[in-house]
Amino acid sequence: MRAITVAQPGGPENLRVEERPTPSAGPGEVLIKVVAAGLNRADVMQRMGFYPPPPGASDILGLEVSGIVQHVADDVTGFAAGDLVCALLTGGGYAEYVNVPAVQVLPVPAGVAITEAAGLPEVSATVLSNLMMTAHLSPGETVLIHGGSSGIGTHAIQFAKALGATVAVTAGSDAKLDLCGELGADILINYRTQEFGEVLKDRVDVILDIIGAKYLSHNISALAVDGRLVTIGLQGGVVAEININDLLRKRGTFAATNLRGRPLDQKASIISRVREVTWPLIESGAIKPIVGQAFPLEDAAEAHRFLESADSSGKVLLTI
Amino acid sequence: MRAITVAQPGGPENLRVEERPTPSAGPGEVLIKVVAAGLNRADVMQRMGFYPPPPGASDILGLEVSGIVQHVADDVTGFAAGDLVCALLTGGGYAEYVNVPAVQVLPVPAGVAITEAAGLPEVSATVLSNLMMTAHLSPGETVLIHGGSSGIGTHAIQFAKALGATVAVTAGSDAKLDLCGELGADILINYRTQEFGEVLKDRVDVILDIIGAKYLSHNISALAVDGRLVTIGLQGGVVAEININDLLRKRGTFAATNLRGRPLDQKASIISRVREVTWPLIESGAIKPIVGQAFPLEDAAEAHRFLESADSSGKVLLTI
Repeated sequence: MRAITVAQPGGPENLRVEERPTPSAGPGEVLIKVVAAGLNRADVMQRMGFYPPPPGASDILGLEVSGIVQHVADDVTGFAAGDLVCALLTGGGYAEYVNVPAVQVLPVPAGVAITEAAGLPEVSATVLSNLMMTAHLSPGETVLIHGGSSGIGTHAIQFAKALGATVAVTAGSDAKLDLCGELGADILINYRTQEFGEVLKDRVDVILDIIGAKYLSHNISALAVDGRLVTIGLQGGVVAEININDLLRKRGTFAATNLRGRPLDQKASIISRVREVTWPLIESGAIKPIVGQAFPLEDAAEAHRFLESADSSGKVLLTI
Repeated sequence: MRAITVAQPGGPENLRVEERPTPSAGPGEVLIKVVAAGLNRADVMQRMGFYPPPPGASDILGLEVSGIVQHVADDVTGFAAGDLVCALLTGGGYAEYVNVPAVQVLPVPAGVAITEAAGLPEVSATVLSNLMMTAHLSPGETVLIHGGSSGIGTHAIQFAKALGATVAVTAGSDAKLDLCGELGADILINYRTQEFGEVLKDRVDVILDIIGAKYLSHNISALAVDGRLVTIGLQGGVVAEININDLLRKRGTFAATNLRGRPLDQKASIISRVREVTWPLIESGAIKPIVGQAFPLEDAAEAHRFLESADSSGKVLLTI
């Protein structure tokens, strides 16, 4: 089968199409014939050599796909050949076929095109696990979502609104903020012209952060009493100064999480909650998949360039 | 009535005995004739001018007492004049009488002397709220308790053992570590000769920290995957450098909390859980109150000097 791998760590030009053996479904697994793969920031980090695949994972890029079930292992129930599904992966998604533990597979939600569904597993699992399971976002609370027009951001805005929260977002252009507003965001902050830590001082119950070091003190400034900051990305660096008393006076919590490194039982429990909570919201239309652009598999380098550009909004996909 | 107040911020010599009007129980309150008051680090901070009483709180020192109910407001149920009680206060404990919301009052546990009970409200509420409600310490997990021989430490060791956790402690002398061992601690670390961050690297599920900045990176080093660090004191400073990626790789959580600033409904819910969970453990003998030394009310300055000395273990009390 064809698959996208990294010739050597570096820029998008290092992505290459390779011929690889088609995998087969081991115990507990499902083999999926891929229709589309979702792109994630983590793919870019992996391409650059900063985020090696965990032990045992495929070196083929790609953390999520949609497709058609080709085969299921004897011990798997709930899925059968021919089912239209999408899945959260530990790697291997930029390929014609991928095998994945059945507990990480979801049906394509009713009303969603199979291609669009490729962009749902990572964002839905990331948003639900962090906003609901880690930060316990409650109706009536205020949540701040950084990078509101990104794949995660566009999903998080809609998820938080469906939960009954007030949603503030940051983004880097008025066009991106317009998109966030159309998705339901209540407070729109252009980080190029406004200081979110001042605008939202002491007002935010939950923050979903993809920036890390550069935003840490501003995030703590924005937190309300009993506020929870969850950092899931480090686009603004790793090492920061923290004033612990600022956190303590607010009884604040600072959690830093990732999805890919979680053990199978945690992924299973997250996917099960996604199916229970998020899937009905997608099927009712309360949450729409927001796809920015789709590229053919062999144009993976082009797709990475687009994801890394300032023009990207919503999810970027590869189609097979 | 006699009460201890702070003449001006500074050393123990600034504590003075003053004559103050005896308070009366307002709506929802209980008036307690004080038998003993517990000392806390926060009292020292307040004496030094670093921890002013919250708006509306008494300027008389003292965050916990035991005593005899003198009077209850008409709307209070569950307590009556003559009851032996102890209570969590927002201030006013170093005095002959104190009024307090009834939801912050507990009966003296069966088998505990009324004087000893003065040292229970702060430690039991602090330990339960942080280990159980904030950090969700589970049976079989490992907890690290800094300052194991302190009032909070001695209670936390016994509470965590009763929950079924493995308990590691730090303290500054072999005598103090011996006390921790007698109370059930499994791993004894002398911080003067050992680096706890190395000894316990990646092994600790929950940390109860009173040091803050000086220990932050070592605490993160000691955390296991999915570990939770809770800082409740800043004896080692306020500003630290944090490597967010170290926290993220472990999916770690860093919470900083305080008890005094919590709103009444949170205090009520904590005290209610203490009565439900901790009180039976005290009444069965699984948790013993550890009193280091007791001083008469008028020797408050002496008591503060003892609390601040390296000799102090367990709770320090004032008796009326």
